[in-house]
Order: sequence, then C-alpha cells, then structure tokens
Amino acid sequence: MHNDTKDSVGLVRTQTIQLKEKISLDCGTTFGPITVAYETYGRMNEAKSNVILVLHALSGSAHAAGYWTPEDKKPGWWDMMIGPGKALDTNLYCVICSNVLGGCYGTTGPSSINPNTQQPYAMSFPVISISDMVTVQKQLMDQLEIPGLLAIIGGSMGGMQVLEWAVNYPGYVKGAIPIASTARLSAQSIAFNEVGRRAIMADPKWNNGNYDPKDPPARGLEIARMVGHITYLSDESMQKKFGRRLKDTLQYSYDFDPEFEVESYLRYQGKSFVKRFDANAYLYITKAMDYFDIAMRTNGSLEELFKNVTSSFLVMAFSSDWLFPSYQSKAIAKALRTVNKEVTYVEIKSSLGHDAFLLEHQTITHVIKYYLKHLSDGNKK
Amino acid sequence: MHNDTKDSVGLVRTQTIQLKEKISLDCGTTFGPITVAYETYGRMNEAKSNVILVLHALSGSAHAAGYWTPEDKKPGWWDMMIGPGKALDTNLYCVICSNVLGGCYGTTGPSSINPNTQQPYAMSFPVISISDMVTVQKQLMDQLEIPGLLAIIGGSMGGMQVLEWAVNYPGYVKGAIPIASTARLSAQSIAFNEVGRRAIMADPKWNNGNYDPKDPPARGLEIARMVGHITYLSDESMQKKFGRRLKDTLQYSYDFDPEFEVESYLRYQGKSFVKRFDANAYLYITKAMDYFDIAMRTNGSLEELFKNVTSSFLVMAFSSDWLFPSYQSKAIAKALRTVNKEVTYVEIKSSLGHDAFLLEHQTITHVIKYYLKHLSDGNKK
Repeated sequence: MHNDTKDSVGLVRTQTIQLKEKISLDCGTTFGPITVAYETYGRMNEAKSNVILVLHALSGSAHAAGYWTPEDKKPGWWDMMIGPGKALDTNLYCVICSNVLGGCYGTTGPSSINPNTQQPYAMSFPVISISDMVTVQKQLMDQLEIPGLLAIIGGSMGGMQVLEWAVNYPGYVKGAIPIASTARLSAQSIAFNEVGRRAIMADPKWNNGNYDPKDPPARGLEIARMVGHITYLSDESMQKKFGRRLKDTLQYSYDFDPEFEVESYLRYQGKSFVKRFDANAYLYITKAMDYFDIAMRTNGSLEELFKNVTSSFLVMAFSSDWLFPSYQSKAIAKALRTVNKEVTYVEIKSSLGHDAFLLEHQTITHVIKYYLKHLSDGNKK
Repeated sequence: MHNDTKDSVGLVRTQTIQLKEKISLDCGTTFGPITVAYETYGRMNEAKSNVILVLHALSGSAHAAGYWTPEDKKPGWWDMMIGPGKALDTNLYCVICSNVLGGCYGTTGPSSINPNTQQPYAMSFPVISISDMVTVQKQLMDQLEIPGLLAIIGGSMGGMQVLEWAVNYPGYVKGAIPIASTARLSAQSIAFNEVGRRAIMADPKWNNGNYDPKDPPARGLEIARMVGHITYLSDESMQKKFGRRLKDTLQYSYDFDPEFEVESYLRYQGKSFVKRFDANAYLYITKAMDYFDIAMRTNGSLEELFKNVTSSFLVMAFSSDWLFPSYQSKAIAKALRTVNKEVTYVEIKSSLGHDAFLLEHQTITHVIKYYLKHLSDGNKK
C-alpha cells in the first residue's frame, strides 16, 4: 500500500470524455470523434479559480499522480510534484492532467479504432501538431465548464503546450510554467527524432503501421527509446550513474552481448517502453514536436507573438539539459520581457540533464509553490 | 584532374603487405594471417628519421591523401592536412597511413575471407581492441624496416591509437599528437555505439553477421551512421548548417517523408555510408572503442601509466566537441604534466563539434607544423 501516505493523492482513476465537436487540425483536416482521457486531483473551489492543468511530455499519460490500485508499485509520472503539501498542492488546487491527442493512453491516437472502418487508424491518423493537442485540451476544459486556468505547467513537450496555451487563449490562463522546453525544436532534436522514427519504420514488423498490437515493431521502438533516453540524461549523469562499470564481471567478455551497465540499462529502458507505448504514437508525437516552432505565425518573432499574451510566466531550465538547452528557455524569457510581460526565469544547476524536470522536484518545488501562491493571492485581490 | 595542384600528393595507390607473424590479441586469441593495407606519401630520409604515422578514426581508411585515379572527385580523408607545404609536409616528412585491424578497407577484418573456411569471418572474427590495432601497425613498421617514428597523429579513435603507441612502445615514438580524443570512452559514447550496434543487429538482413555483401543490413547500418553523425556535429553547427529549413517546400507536408533539410542530410549520410562500409566492421570497431580505457592496466591511474612514456605530446581538443569533450583531452595533458612529461595542450574554439578534427585544418595546421619542426630540430642536434 502506497496510497495512504499523507502526501499522496491516494487512489485515482482515469476518466474519459467524448468531445462534442470535431477539431480543425493544423494540417487542414477536420477530425473526430475524439475521446480524451484525463485525471483530476484536489477539488475545484466555488469560484473555479484554482484549476491547474498539467501537460505531459512525449511518453507521458493522464496518470500524473496517485495510484490506480492499492497494488500499484509506481505512482503517476509526476507524483513527486502533485499531492497534499507538494508543489502542486491538492489541498489548495484542483490539478487536471489529460493524455495528448495522438497518444496511446486513452485519448484518441493512431492505435484507436477508426469508427468508419472498425480498424485502428494506424497511418491514416492525421499528422497533428502541438497546437492541435492544445485545441483538444481547451475543448476538454470547456466541457468540464472550467472558466479559466490558474496555471498551466509542463516540462519538455509539456512546455511547448504551455506556450501554445498562453498564446492561443490569452485571458484564459493566469500563469504559465514551461520547464526545460523551447519555442522551436532545434535541428539536433529533429535529427534525434528522425533516427527514432527511422528505426521504427525500418523494422519489418512495422508494416506501414499495420501491425498487430500484440506483435509490434518492438526492435525498432526499442532503438528509438534507447537513443531518446541518452538525450534525456547528460554526459555527467551517465558518468555518475554507470561510468564504465561492467554488469556481471570484472573482465571484458569479448563478445557482443551487453556487458557495460549502461548497455543493460538502455536495453531495459527500451524493452520496458515497448510494453507500454505504441510505435505509431511515437511517430506522430515526435513529428508534432518537430513541427513545433511557435513563432512561425509571426515570421519568427517571439516578441511579436507574445504581444497579446496576458499570462505571467515562470520559465525554468536546467544547466545540464543539452536536448532543450537553457539558452532556449532564456530566449523565451527574454522575448517576454522585451514586450513587457511578467516573467521570472530560473536556471537550476543540475547534472541530471533534460530528465531533471522529472527528478529535481526538491529544487523546483519551492520556486513553483511561491509562484503559484503569488498567482492565487492575485485572485483574492 | 585534381592531382596536379602543387599542394597535392597527386596520384597514390594503396599497398598491401602480409604480416609475417600472427598477433596475440587482448582477447587471448592468436590471430593470423593478417593483411595490412597502407599508403605512403613523401620520402623517407636516409636516417629514416622523418616518418609520421597517421591513425584513422572509426570509418577511415589507409587512403588519407591524394587521388587513386585522375577521375576521382574526392581525395583521401585528410588531404587538407597531408601534402607539400601542408601540416604534414610531404616535402619534409614521409607520411604513412594504414587501415586498422577489423576494418573493411584492405586490412583483415570481419568481411575478409577466412582461409580455413573460404568464407568471410563475419562474427567468427575475434573481438579486437585498440591496442590490437596498434600491435598490427607496429608489425607493419617493423616489416617496412622503420626504426622509429618522428610522430604519430590521429583524431578521435586515431587519438586512442596514438596513446596506445606512446604507452606500448616507449622509445619508438618521438612525438604523439592525439586530437579530439580520450583516455577512456565515456558511458555516453558507449551508449551511442550500442544504439548503432542494436540497429544493425536488429536488421533481419544482418542474419547473425552472415549476410551477402551485395545485400547487407543497409537499414540498420544507415541508422547507426545517422545517430553517429549527429554526435560528430554540434547543436550550434547543426543550427547553422540546417536550422529548421525545409528541403523542397515552404510548408509542412504533414506526412512522414523527410522534409527538414537535416533529415535529408542524415539519410543521405546513412545511405552513402552503406555503400562504403561493412556492417560487421562497424560492430567490431565500435566495440574496440568501447573497450578503450588505457589506464585499466594501471588501475585507472593515467599518471602511473604515463611514467614510462618517452614521447613528447601535443594534445588538441575542440570547444564544441561533446562526443569527446575537451575535459577528456585536458585529463590526458594534466596526467602527463604531473609525471613531468613534455606536453602542450591546445583547445581550439570551434563550433564544428567532434568533426572539427577533419574540418578545422586551417586552425590546427600551424600548431602541428610548429610542433613537428620542433621535433625535427631535435633530431638534428
């Protein structure tokens, strides 16, 4: 039993809702029906002014906190941040997290059944954007009759959604917290994503996306996850965590089995991922990230883009993050400041690389708590 | 015709030699027969005191300079460094480069025919080390009756060989120039190598190494090269070279064909590599790099290891190299200095990442020229 500790949200369940309307996607298609999976923690106040929306990263889900069953060994993916007394304090706030459009954890995605064909969409699923994900989230908020959000918060791809929210729905969002994120995906990150997609699509079992879910392109997805995982860590953290340690022996085995700890770790990460993630969803979500360049609509000017934004911002980055390096977060903060928006930029010294947003909860908790208190105090005035 | 410019070594040819003796490998096996492919540029002086051995990186060959035919469009891989008046001035020095053991450019490797079976060795080839490569090079030097080397020079894996040379054959080498290299491969680099190997071995065409050379595991090797290539560049150089530019259009295509320039570039690199490199050789050479930790024999102490070294050292690194970051070269220089060896450490500011050792020839030329002149002057005294 893990769910009875006093700082846990305890037992939770994922709810699903069908969106009432179809969605106009960036690619030009109108798409629906769409089911959205979401979880909520904490209670909405009467004024409905205490809602915080949590936005997940590439491989996340709506299950951000708590346990589905008393037997669960692991809580939701951001449990260290969400709960009574935690950064997103469920005694004070109502926290919502939904699975993104194109995902594989309950929200409609390429592995969902197309009602017109009774087959999975697979590669007939439309290519989506980060903005499309946010359009779906806004419909969810509307159907849940939430008049506005106290804050939106997310790391990595979650931070991209934070930016889309602040830009697309000014007035709806009070505080925006993009963490370890960027306003546009870099060439290097596109390149790593493309390697992952190539690995999946080169796997004969991928079969143009038409695979049996029980027999997926496991080897391809494993490789995609392995390379992704390297980019989530840092040279320093890998040195500390694994160094050149061998797994079982003190001597080189002189064969091609995994023998360094780092090799076994990556294989394990790859294999676990295959059990929990859909290969086509990986293609679609990484593509949405590649397309992310939020200032395209203002010809590359972040300043121009941010002019109509009404939220205040807390922008956070980690010193050893080389996937979304801190200069990218700094550029967001700088542009906001240039157009006189309220912004706090915090760069946290950490050796944990990009994954720090999932791990450095002790360091980021007090910054976020303080910022949210400041936002809520504003409500009361 | 490219070979008649006055700073080119002109037309060259790769020579092969069969080693007279079998080699004792680090894995415990005695292996032979071994053929070695090598090229020479410039002339040996009477005292045989002007020989420089060039050591190539992962995908290099003995063809370091000049042209094989007048029709060749590209010269050898380090042509900008080797020739009359260049850094390795063929008017002054006799430059030799040989293909490494385990390679696929003429020296015995997994794609060579095993005389006992008349089949390619494939995965029956013994697992080799960087030290084994150097053992083969030393036999080559002995058979060419070269009494000692003025200098040894190489970047990346070539730098690892430089260190092995200096440590294993003290007295034989006057000057050692490891560039963009390391004394031990990091966990992160092992991880990237393992991703590449997984990609090859997951390709059904790999077939446990027993593939038809005309129908190799192309998709796997392509992916391995793509991921490798990203590590050879830098965030900054990829930003400058590609940014987020699209290949053919101004608008997103909303499909999974390569559309960003960086994607096309990587695919092109992958596809070209398949035409020129053997997948099994990629497995063996990356494994040799993973095993490289030259101070293992002295329980991790570089200082202890370098005590008996007689060469002087010129250690070079590049500021944006994140595969073999400059702190790794600095550690080599520092250890040498601690045990009172003659060492110059030069860190070059460059945005070109690890590949800078192949590209920043204008910057490194004068440093190397000066160092070599200093070494030669020592000869005359």
